[in-house]
Order: sequence, then C-alpha cells, then structure tokens
Amino acid sequence: MNPKQQAKQNVQTMYNSDGFSQWLGIQIVHVEPGNVQLKMTVRKEMTNGFGIAHGGISYSFADSALAFASNGHDVHCVSIETSISHLAAIHVGDELTALATEIRKANKVAWYRVEVRNQHDEIVAQFNGTVYRTSKSW
Amino acid sequence: MNPKQQAKQNVQTMYNSDGFSQWLGIQIVHVEPGNVQLKMTVRKEMTNGFGIAHGGISYSFADSALAFASNGHDVHCVSIETSISHLAAIHVGDELTALATEIRKANKVAWYRVEVRNQHDEIVAQFNGTVYRTSKSW
Amino acid sequence: MNPKQQAKQNVQTMYNSDGFSQWLGIQIVHVEPGNVQLKMTVRKEMTNGFGIAHGGISYSFADSALAFASNGHDVHCVSIETSISHLAAIHVGDELTALATEIRKANKVAWYRVEVRNQHDEIVAQFNGTVYRTSKSW
Amino acid sequence: MNPKQQAKQNVQTMYNSDGFSQWLGIQIVHVEPGNVQLKMTVRKEMTNGFGIAHGGISYSFADSALAFASNGHDVHCVSIETSISHLAAIHVGDELTALATEIRKANKVAWYRVEVRNQHDEIVAQFNGTVYRTSKSW
Repeated sequence: MNPKQQAKQNVQTMYNSDGFSQWLGIQIVHVEPGNVQLKMTVRKEMTNGFGIAHGGISYSFADSALAFASNGHDVHCVSIETSISHLAAIHVGDELTALATEIRKANKVAWYRVEVRNQHDEIVAQFNGTVYRTSKSW
Repeated sequence: MNPKQQAKQNVQTMYNSDGFSQWLGIQIVHVEPGNVQLKMTVRKEMTNGFGIAHGGISYSFADSALAFASNGHDVHCVSIETSISHLAAIHVGDELTALATEIRKANKVAWYRVEVRNQHDEIVAQFNGTVYRTSKSW
Repeated sequence: MNPKQQAKQNVQTMYNSDGFSQWLGIQIVHVEPGNVQLKMTVRKEMTNGFGIAHGGISYSFADSALAFASNGHDVHCVSIETSISHLAAIHVGDELTALATEIRKANKVAWYRVEVRNQHDEIVAQFNGTVYRTSKSW
Repeated sequence: MNPKQQAKQNVQTMYNSDGFSQWLGIQIVHVEPGNVQLKMTVRKEMTNGFGIAHGGISYSFADSALAFASNGHDVHCVSIETSISHLAAIHVGDELTALATEIRKANKVAWYRVEVRNQHDEIVAQFNGTVYRTSKSW
C-alpha cells in the first residue's frame, strides 16, 4: 500500500470501532497522511441549554478530525493537549465541515489545526491539537 | 431568592433544555454562583477508535460544568475560548466528577478551571474556559 | 484617513510607547486593519538555560503582533486569552517573521492567529489570541 | 544528592546560563521536584503600548517557572504547548510571584499549572504548560 492507502485504511479501522464518531454522524470525505476532511449534520439532541449546539459537539467533531489526521501516518497517536475557539453559534440542521491540517510532525510530537465551517462556508470554530506519537506501529 | 437559590434555578432551567448534557447522563451534584460539581458515567457508545473514551466526552462534560458555573450569576454567559489537557485514559464504566471553579470574574469576561476526576480520584482531564458575560439578565 | 492609514497610525502610536517591543527589536513590516507582519532578530540575552531562545521570546513577539493587528480597527483591544505551540528550536541570530491574521471579529470579542517563521521559512511557533474589544475609541 | 537537592542543582545550572530569566530579574524562592516558586519586579522597559506590562512579561515569567519545575526531575524537559489567561493588568513596580504546580507526570509528557499573583495576592495570570520529557538525563 502507498501512504495514502495506508492512511485511508487506518482511518477506516478507527472509525469502525469509534462509537461516538458514529453517534455524531461523522462522514469521512477525504483522507491523506496528516490531513482529513469530515462532515456531519447537527441534530436536536446535540443542543445545549440555550438551544444552540453544545460546545462539546464542535469540539468532538474537530477532535475526531485530529485523531484521523494524526493516525494517517506510521504510528498510533494520542491527543495530549487541545484548544477550541467558539467563533459563532451553530444551529440544529447546520451542515458542518472539519478540515484538519498538519502544522508540524516531529519525531514524538505533532501539531494540527482544524477549522470547522458551516454550510455557508463561515468559520464557526477553530481547534488546535497536539498529539503524542507512540511507538506502536499501525 | 438568594444568590445560591438563583444559581440553582438558572442551572436547572438550562439543564432542562440541554439535550446533549442529558444524553451524556450528567447529574448535578452541587451548585453555587461560579462553582459547580457534576458527575456522569462513561458508556460504550462514548468510545473512540482505540476503545477508550473519546476526547470529546471529557471535553463536553467539562464544558457543561463551565456553562453551569458561569451562568450561576446575574447574566447569560457564552463560552468563547476553552482548552483541555487529556491527562490519562478514561474507560467505559468510569464514574467521572467535574469540579468547576471560578478563577476571576470581571465585568464582561470571566475565567474558570474544571478538573475531571475518575472514581479513584485520579485527575484525568484539566480544562480551562473563558466566557463572555452578555448584557442579557437571567 | 482611510482604514489602512488609521491602522498604521494606531500601531505607530502604540509602538512609540511600547518599551518591551522596542527592547525585542521588533520592526513593523506591514500593517492593515486586523493583519500585521513584523520581524525581529534573536539576540544572546534572549536565550534560556538550554542556550536556545526562551519560550517567552517567540510568545512576546507573537503577542505584539496580536496587539498591533487587533488595534488596527476602531477600538482599543486587550488580550484575554492566548496559547502558543513551540514547534522547533529558535537560535541566536535567527531572523523571525510574525504574520498575524484575523480569524473573526465579532462586536466585543475577536480572534487572531499568528505564525512565527525563521529565515528558512520554517514555522517555529504557532500562536492563537483572543481579545476583548473595549468601548474606548482610537 | 536527594531528589530535592538534585532539583535545586538542575535549576541553578539552568538559571546560570538563562540570560533572559536574568534580564527579567527572576529570583528563585523555592524549588522541589515538579514545583517551584519564583518572584520578580516589573520594570518600565517591560511595558506595552498601553503603559501596562506587556503580555509577554507574565508569560515569560510563567514559562521560566514551567522550565524550572519540569526540569527538577531526572530528565531534560522541553515545552511543547502553553497557554496563558491575562486576568488583570500588571503595572510597573508590581512584585510578582509565580507558583508552578505539577498536575501530572507521565513517562514522556508532563503537565503543569502556573499561577502569577501580584503583591496584593491577586491572581493576575494563569498559565498551563505541557512539556515533552526527553531521554537526556540530568
């Protein structure tokens, strides 16, 4: 397999046993080593006490993108530190896209940025994630 | 109502329409203005592709604690910036406690820290959240 | 004055009384409302106990970029929450460039990203900053 | 040497070649493995364009505390990800104290929190730092 096929296979393996990404309704649009694009639609049960999407929804969506992007290389990666800016309200029915980009991959640590946009291509959340690259091979 | 009763009422009002906190199975243990304690139990459908709790679960739990703590005062608060450190793996069946503490409340901005611990009192996640204090009264 | 001239004047006014940016040797390369480009050279007295640039140097450089970018609009802005990823070591003599980009500007809060690169165009630090937009006009 | 003596010696070795911590005027108050207390006084040349301490000053002070706390154990540690909340303005002449606390130390990664307080014991900045624990022994 070439690197892109390997990345796709890793992500598919993870997704198949990732119950929470399945509950979120995440669909995998594009995968290559270090970069992925995902989409999902916001449902009623994902709202908070103000009737808009709970902050945990955009975070979880971005965190799945981080996991899939970082695990597209050779070794298992685990998230150690993440942050998210909630830039604009997300509503029921919104169709979200997450674009994960690798900023830098060092030997044992790698950094990613994930942008979450709605169906109007407005940025609604920006996420940064740092992962530890374990010694366990895919 | 005194401030503590007001805080409890605000949180109950939010929780009653907070579908995602209900899905998470969050229970409200203690509420006072600026500080709350919550608990929840990790279920199978909350796991990621490595069979442990998805990072979005501890984040969402902590983010609900942030919302309930910050909205225990006089005005509606919205989260603008948050970060979480994933300190240790969380497993299915783990009973988690979130303790939200107010670090500082200024006029328009306030800062909170949330510690998430498991049933062995081990810290498994540390969360920091900044909210914008809107002009809309409770 | 048009918006770009206003931004330049605000930044120059700030810089003239900004003793620490002057100590850092920051030079203003480009200014427009919400976006700036700065440069500086790392000196011996900026190193830490490992002989490389102290983490506070790249942070301070990026934080000045945040201040200059966010204050290029109509009102005084103050930083409330920032984070920085230290991606690669920075050495004495390195010529650094900071590029600050506005992610989103809401009424009272705005978000910026700053990339710091060295003379080889390698990204050495990534910074995110959230500011509070006060009601004090420039 | 016992662990506490080792920590003190590591920190002193770092401080002796840490030009920027010396420029900041940092004094080491207390050191033990994983935890340190530092102090410093804010000078005129540390201010920003608004006449208060530049955000980089409290960050740099906290980042030194992170370096000294994390390097009090057995191996060299390098900062990979940090964040700081600017909670209140810091003025020329303020006497600052930084208290670094170890949140969790895993094999290759460790997490710290640093609180910065002024002479009135008011919290003025809260900092979180994640370090990578290299394989290089002290």
